[in-house]
Amino acid sequence: MTAASAQAWSSGPNCGSRRSNCSQTPLLPLGRRSRTVTSRSFQAGRSGGPPGRRRRAERPPGLRAPRPRASPRGGGAGRGGAGRARGPGGGAGSRPPRPSVSPRSQSAPAEAGSAPPAARGAPRAAPGAQRHGAGQDLQLVGARRALPHVAGRPRLRRHVVCAVNALAHHVLNKDLSDIVGDFRGFYRQLTSDGQLRWIGPEKGVVHLATAAILNAVWDLWAKQERKPLWKLLVDMDPRTLLSCIDFRYITDVLTEEEAYEILQKGQVGKKEREGQMLMHGYPAYTTSCAWLGYSDDTLKQLCTEALKAGWTRFKVKVGADLQDDVRRCRLIRNMIGPEKTLMMDANQRWDVPEAVKWMSKLAEFKPLWIEEPTSPDDILGHATISKALAPLGIGVATGEQCHNRVIFKQLLQAKALQFLQIDSCRLGSVNENLSVLLMAKKFEIPVCPHAGGVGLCELVQHLIIFDFISISASLQNRMCEYVDHLHEHFRYPVIIKKASYMPPKDAGYSTEMKEESVKKHQYPDGEVWKKLLAAQEN
Amino acid sequence: MTAASAQAWSSGPNCGSRRSNCSQTPLLPLGRRSRTVTSRSFQAGRSGGPPGRRRRAERPPGLRAPRPRASPRGGGAGRGGAGRARGPGGGAGSRPPRPSVSPRSQSAPAEAGSAPPAARGAPRAAPGAQRHGAGQDLQLVGARRALPHVAGRPRLRRHVVCAVNALAHHVLNKDLSDIVGDFRGFYRQLTSDGQLRWIGPEKGVVHLATAAILNAVWDLWAKQERKPLWKLLVDMDPRTLLSCIDFRYITDVLTEEEAYEILQKGQVGKKEREGQMLMHGYPAYTTSCAWLGYSDDTLKQLCTEALKAGWTRFKVKVGADLQDDVRRCRLIRNMIGPEKTLMMDANQRWDVPEAVKWMSKLAEFKPLWIEEPTSPDDILGHATISKALAPLGIGVATGEQCHNRVIFKQLLQAKALQFLQIDSCRLGSVNENLSVLLMAKKFEIPVCPHAGGVGLCELVQHLIIFDFISISASLQNRMCEYVDHLHEHFRYPVIIKKASYMPPKDAGYSTEMKEESVKKHQYPDGEVWKKLLAAQEN
Repeated sequence: MTAASAQAWSSGPNCGSRRSNCSQTPLLPLGRRSRTVTSRSFQAGRSGGPPGRRRRAERPPGLRAPRPRASPRGGGAGRGGAGRARGPGGGAGSRPPRPSVSPRSQSAPAEAGSAPPAARGAPRAAPGAQRHGAGQDLQLVGARRALPHVAGRPRLRRHVVCAVNALAHHVLNKDLSDIVGDFRGFYRQLTSDGQLRWIGPEKGVVHLATAAILNAVWDLWAKQERKPLWKLLVDMDPRTLLSCIDFRYITDVLTEEEAYEILQKGQVGKKEREGQMLMHGYPAYTTSCAWLGYSDDTLKQLCTEALKAGWTRFKVKVGADLQDDVRRCRLIRNMIGPEKTLMMDANQRWDVPEAVKWMSKLAEFKPLWIEEPTSPDDILGHATISKALAPLGIGVATGEQCHNRVIFKQLLQAKALQFLQIDSCRLGSVNENLSVLLMAKKFEIPVCPHAGGVGLCELVQHLIIFDFISISASLQNRMCEYVDHLHEHFRYPVIIKKASYMPPKDAGYSTEMKEESVKKHQYPDGEVWKKLLAAQEN
Repeated sequence: MTAASAQAWSSGPNCGSRRSNCSQTPLLPLGRRSRTVTSRSFQAGRSGGPPGRRRRAERPPGLRAPRPRASPRGGGAGRGGAGRARGPGGGAGSRPPRPSVSPRSQSAPAEAGSAPPAARGAPRAAPGAQRHGAGQDLQLVGARRALPHVAGRPRLRRHVVCAVNALAHHVLNKDLSDIVGDFRGFYRQLTSDGQLRWIGPEKGVVHLATAAILNAVWDLWAKQERKPLWKLLVDMDPRTLLSCIDFRYITDVLTEEEAYEILQKGQVGKKEREGQMLMHGYPAYTTSCAWLGYSDDTLKQLCTEALKAGWTRFKVKVGADLQDDVRRCRLIRNMIGPEKTLMMDANQRWDVPEAVKWMSKLAEFKPLWIEEPTSPDDILGHATISKALAPLGIGVATGEQCHNRVIFKQLLQAKALQFLQIDSCRLGSVNENLSVLLMAKKFEIPVCPHAGGVGLCELVQHLIIFDFISISASLQNRMCEYVDHLHEHFRYPVIIKKASYMPPKDAGYSTEMKEESVKKHQYPDGEVWKKLLAAQEN
């Protein structure tokens, strides 16, 4: 978008808005023509994104091991207050241009892979940012940005971006108001696409693409409202919020009326909880200390640093080798002491009987939960494991690869989990996550979001902060995953203070990446990949 | 492959092989260099396939409405006996070339999109067939052919072919013996691909692509053994057969030893059941009469023809409008009488309570089952529906969009279905279908395969005939779906006699399509699509 519109959209230091009901927000055209984007502008081959950590908790190629850090990362500067971008023609009073999505002229191919422009005067603004396109750039680029899971996995990313392209005709030439005015209908339109439904339905590539597109729409909507996404949701009246949710296939467990009652109850004490979040943030746990493959020395070092930094909740990866797990869990438990919280994560390595047997051996280290003990599709398997481990005081956590609300509905029905881990990019964006947050509340199961992938922390913090303020109203047994990993590539990285997520204050869904990062990690021509691929050849 | 090798691989009229144990089959090199194929040879843009019927049971563009036909289609000619291709240097005694998959030289791009060549002298042999490539052509082309679900859904097909390409490095430069020698390991290798697992796991595009590649491998293996696939499986010793199955995530319900016992029991009376199949075929039901959107007159006409042709089992699509359903079901039940079998299919249209309510209204028409009443992911929902409809004598059937063995395992555990509908291309090929057939046997749930999509009948008939001969040993409550639709595009179309599938006699998995069909339906440049796309523009 242009610097002016970026400025116009940036929220005030207190994220205040003079509209408390987003549904009443008119999206008036300013008569200024916006730049356009061709579908070429999100071709996979030209899309960027840094290499993420690999499956099985290996380190990503050419990336430093994550190191816990407690002090707020650079985000302090340039975020809110004095640091915030201030430009002519901006300010809270000015109206934004009407966002819309339309084909970009062939004349601007060079901008295809570029990140959203910086607000004029914003710290680290990319050179020439002002030359970049309009609001809809943000939306389309956002659709590519909103692929944290797949950033850095080029073969994989290509598929998802390809699916985003296949769904593009649903958004191109639409005004934001057309989309959010009937958001439930639009969600259903994307997930019921005649052809693409066949390669789902509501799962795999096509659902990741749905999430990417809708995450970008939510980012645009929040910017339009000059609010961070969590605040957009908190301020939204319950009926409008419910109109974003597709209740199809879950009405046997949660009707719209039940959901409305939950949200109404959530209104009580909302202001206080928002104040609490702004002051203390949302509790986090760290996964940065104990990846598989770390030497005991590295593990000790990272653990020591994390303790110094004030972390009190730790997750260790398990499942490769039992004796190795016993040694590493003993080491960590001894370091953090009996009071602090330890969680374990098996990344789907076991069959059901194996999971029970293995965890019985690790019970002595008092884990709060075992995460992904088996296939993410195995609802009844998770239920069996939950039942078997309950007497040992070990809960079951899963969700990062549960592909839609129907799976979460059953996990709750079957008492298959004690900790529900939503994912901001696996489910169908905010829309579907809202339905899962509401079902979790009905079953009184704490939501502890999955994060850590490239940008996942940036996105999911909005959802869990909204959950606390408007739905769960509780922090008991609740925390959000945190991995100190690759945040430097994001324009609005998370801020962690005293092992808690501090609520983002910038408008939007925090999905934007830095232009220089995107360029550098462009596959296969970016500097980073060129080096990696050359190294592989030698 | 060359005419000579085609001949060498073609099975005798009785499909006999002098090897009864495929696992002992050496794959000896003949010293003849085989032609090669580049990965370009299955680029999505160049892949073909006829338009299939659309979701919601609409007619595919530009295709005649399916009409039941009982007499064996042209397949009689050129299939077995005198009609079979006989070429010099062929004969049952001659050895095939060693199949392998390696990059095709750039010199033969024109062959990239071509169908496998016809055996010399075979009816309707494509001109210049002899010029076509070697065994591995069949395997790679097979990977594109083995996409029945997606043929004719160009945006969708593009994704799956793209995923096939992404998995290609697992097969390229491999000998068939390398793959089938450790088939379980190879299956695990495909489904555990570090990057692509993220966009599954074992679901969606990447799993359809796994199925496509493995279906092609099975086609090649069966041709190598000069047997139709069903016969390859029937003759395979149980241990070898089990070595093709990945038991991961299902051992809580079926261990390898339990599976072995099932197969051992299946040996008893096998020869008689094979004889029974060869003589009478496997019972089928027709879905051709009662698509949604057919006028009552069309419905009557098709029903009359089907009855004349000897059909005794009929499926009607329901779920769009209750009153419409009542009228159509009454019409069909009146036409077929009280004795014949009627099934209903809702194609996932309902929520759980809605499904129970709706079917209670249609119970008077005595349907044997309601198919896909709700989301294919909703195991517990199907269980609830099953329990509610049992007193009405209505069973629940599902499976065509159940994405892997873990879902089927749970459907069986939860008593969520009374009829299990495997799909030859949704699950991970024969390998994963074998595990589902064995689990179904353990729970004594009849398997009634899904078919009807482009080529699905051709493939799945092999699996269900094997199931009867070697696993279930029963025809009670069992039948295979049949739609008289687009078989004319296949080189070895199904043969239906007296409403039964007659066991294929040609070597392979019946996946091959005719070269002229592929050319004609190439997207977007094929004659058919050019017309359709031009029509859309006007």
